[in-house]
This record gives sequence, C-alpha cells and structure tokens, in this order.
Amino acid sequence: MSIFAEMTNADIKYIRSLREKKFRDEYGLFVVEGEKMVKEAMDSSFDVVDVFRKEEIGEEAMSRISTMSSPSPVLAVVRQKHWEMDRDIPEGLYLGLDSVRDPGNMGTIVRLSDWFGVDTVFASEDSVELYNPKVIQATMGAIFRKKVVYCSIPRLCECFVNAGRKVYGTFLDGENIYSKHLEKDALVIMGNESNGISKATAEKVTDRLLIPSFAKGPTAESLNVAVATAITLSEFRR
Amino acid sequence: MSIFAEMTNADIKYIRSLREKKFRDEYGLFVVEGEKMVKEAMDSSFDVVDVFRKEEIGEEAMSRISTMSSPSPVLAVVRQKHWEMDRDIPEGLYLGLDSVRDPGNMGTIVRLSDWFGVDTVFASEDSVELYNPKVIQATMGAIFRKKVVYCSIPRLCECFVNAGRKVYGTFLDGENIYSKHLEKDALVIMGNESNGISKATAEKVTDRLLIPSFAKGPTAESLNVAVATAITLSEFRR
Repeated sequence: MSIFAEMTNADIKYIRSLREKKFRDEYGLFVVEGEKMVKEAMDSSFDVVDVFRKEEIGEEAMSRISTMSSPSPVLAVVRQKHWEMDRDIPEGLYLGLDSVRDPGNMGTIVRLSDWFGVDTVFASEDSVELYNPKVIQATMGAIFRKKVVYCSIPRLCECFVNAGRKVYGTFLDGENIYSKHLEKDALVIMGNESNGISKATAEKVTDRLLIPSFAKGPTAESLNVAVATAITLSEFRR
Repeated sequence: MSIFAEMTNADIKYIRSLREKKFRDEYGLFVVEGEKMVKEAMDSSFDVVDVFRKEEIGEEAMSRISTMSSPSPVLAVVRQKHWEMDRDIPEGLYLGLDSVRDPGNMGTIVRLSDWFGVDTVFASEDSVELYNPKVIQATMGAIFRKKVVYCSIPRLCECFVNAGRKVYGTFLDGENIYSKHLEKDALVIMGNESNGISKATAEKVTDRLLIPSFAKGPTAESLNVAVATAITLSEFRR
C-alpha cells in the first residue's frame, strides 16, 4: 500500500480549493490532469509540487479531486509562473489579447501561439486568468512552453509604435489581410469576444486588417476570436 | 396577463425533454435561445413551432426551460430539418466531417462554413448531432443558413473521385498547404479530434495536405479541428 493511500479530507479539500481563482491566487498553484499534461508539466521548467495517481490514492479519492467526468489516472499540482515585461522586446511575432474572456478561447490561442511560433503572448489585465482549469486544458500542454505576460495593451502598443514597429489589428473596415503585405516583426492585437478591440487600443493600431467573408448570403456572422487568431497567424507565417 | 402566463408543468417538462437527443429525435424538434438566435430562426426557412418570452411566461418558468446560467429573454422551439444527398453535387467548395464529436467544434465549423461560403457540410453518421444545444449555440445562427447532410464520408469521397474531382485531407505527411495549388472545386475532409481522418476515408483522399508548424521548440502540439478547418478554408478561399 502506497503512502498516498491515506489521503486525508484536508488534502482533498486543499486540492479542490484550487478550482477557485481566489485559492489559486492565494497559494500560487494550479492543477493539471491527464498523463500527457502531467508529463509535459514534469518535462517543463514549471515546478511540479505534487503528483497524485489513481492507483496510489484510489478511485474514490481521485474522483473527488478530479474535475473530469471520468477521473483522469493522474493529477498534478503545479506552481504558477508570472512573467514580467522584458525591457527590450526583440524582433519577432507577438500577440496582444485585448480582453479575451472565454477560457476555451484563451487556451486555444495559447496553443495556436505555440504552433505558429509566436514569441510571447501579452494579455490585458481583464483577460481571463491563465491558470483557470479550462484554459489549461484547452492549451493541450502549450501552457508549459509559452510565456504569457499580463500588462496594459494600449501601453504595449505604444512601445511598439514609438520604436517604429507595426501594430496590427482586425477591424470591419480594415484592409484585406489576403492582399496586404505583413511585416515579420509585428504585434498582432485580437479583441474581446463581443466588443472587439477597445477604443484605447484601436487608437494605437498602425495597420487595420480585415478577414473578408466569402459568404453567399447577406447575413454572414463574425468569426470566433480563436478562429480569427488562427487565420491571422496563418497569414503572417505562410 | 398573457395567455402564456399559465404555463403548465407539462409544458415545461416537454421543453426540458428537448435537452435529450432521444426526445429531440422523437419529436423532431430543437430549442434555440436568445434574441438574436430566435430572430434568425424566424427569418429563416425553418419552422418555428413556439416562442416563449420571459415577460410573458415569467422569470421562474423561463429559468426552468432555459439552459443558460442567466435565463435568456426568449426561447423558441423549432422543427428540425434533415437534408438528403443531392443526386448531383455542383461545382464548389464542400466540407466532409469524418467523425467530429465535440459539439463546440461542430458548431464552430458550421459557422466557419457560412463565413467561407462552403456550399454544403457533409458529416459522417457518427459525428455529433446537429441539433445538440451546444452545437446550435456555437453556430451563432449559421445553422439557419447552412445545409448539413449526414452520410457515409468514404462513399461521398468515392463520388468525387469517380467524377475526377479533388478530395483533400490534412495529414502529418501531406504537402505544405501554403505552397500547393488548391482547386476551387473540392471536397475538404476534416477528421476526428483524437484520431484524425479514418483509414477508410484516407484511402479515398486524392491530395494529402499538411499545415506546417512554425514552433521553435521540438514539442509543438497538433491543432484543434475547428482551428485547422479555419486555416484550411482560409487557404482555399484567399
């Protein structure tokens, strides 16, 4: 019998408390689940504080600490990282998230940033918290490889503009992204799910882009922000 | 006082039953919520069977029939449509979903198909049900404008191949999508979330595509199927 077999109610309560932002903030910890994610955490520069395996703690304890509908075989408690803004931002492709609120979108965008080799993701302070369990799951492990810096997006844009660098954003009245020349050194802004890019940020954008619709009817919808990010990053990298 | 004020428990039970596929199938109905979605349903060729407004039925009844965390002001019961395969499939861009299981992905793909002017979406019989409430919400209204035909995807591919038409699919060993010439008349196959395109379908694909990663590290992840669909359709249309 493993030493973990006697998991106490206090242990369980402490792990379950990490489902709430308040306690994640207080302890500076977060939870990842599943063989693949836990392995990625252990192989990364993140500090893995605890690992709980179903065969050690038992099915019942695992079902109490797991948030999955069918409890995962393994769950880890990991220490949060918080990145500061670098003094100098080297040449490269950067993403700025202006109030992205949906955890699934945020996680998908971090995953996309990894795929498309985005150097750093910047997110406004009112964007969804990186260590929200739904964000973590949606990153599919990219969270352990990508730097996400929370900061003021209008101020970040200003730094780029002052250095003569490009700041791109997508708007309804922008230039067709498929025909416009896109610089390799760039900050690309993605906006809020309902309201798009905020006024304060929009004022700093140097190049307004449009992803045109090819809909046949008159009533084509907007695009989901994660999907718009995919199309935009694909255009910058192709 | 409106005639709806006296909504009976039986009415409520009947609407709530439509959360389950079994009853959606039995009645041939589905539910949409929110001003925008209900308006789109009413403006479409779909048959809207009933409309319930919060100000008519009261807050409590609405909170019982609504699936939203904050009950929407309006909810409609709509008759399902089921499309048959056309005898002739005219020239155009088509999507074939080979076992897409996640409702959010399915809904996002239908929304994307509307944006990129995909003529018809074909889905394998084991793909998620179109009238699942999570699919409906993720389509953001595109469900009322797009034809989704459930059919055998390998057989559909065969029809295209026999007519000398192109069938594209994304694979890890495909040709770079950014440099390959893409035909305007095409069937594009997207695969299952975990397993990709099935063997039976893969055998029928005429042109294997690859969305290359630009990740700097060695461990870049795969892409989510909705995001891969966005990038692929964007390349076909640009």
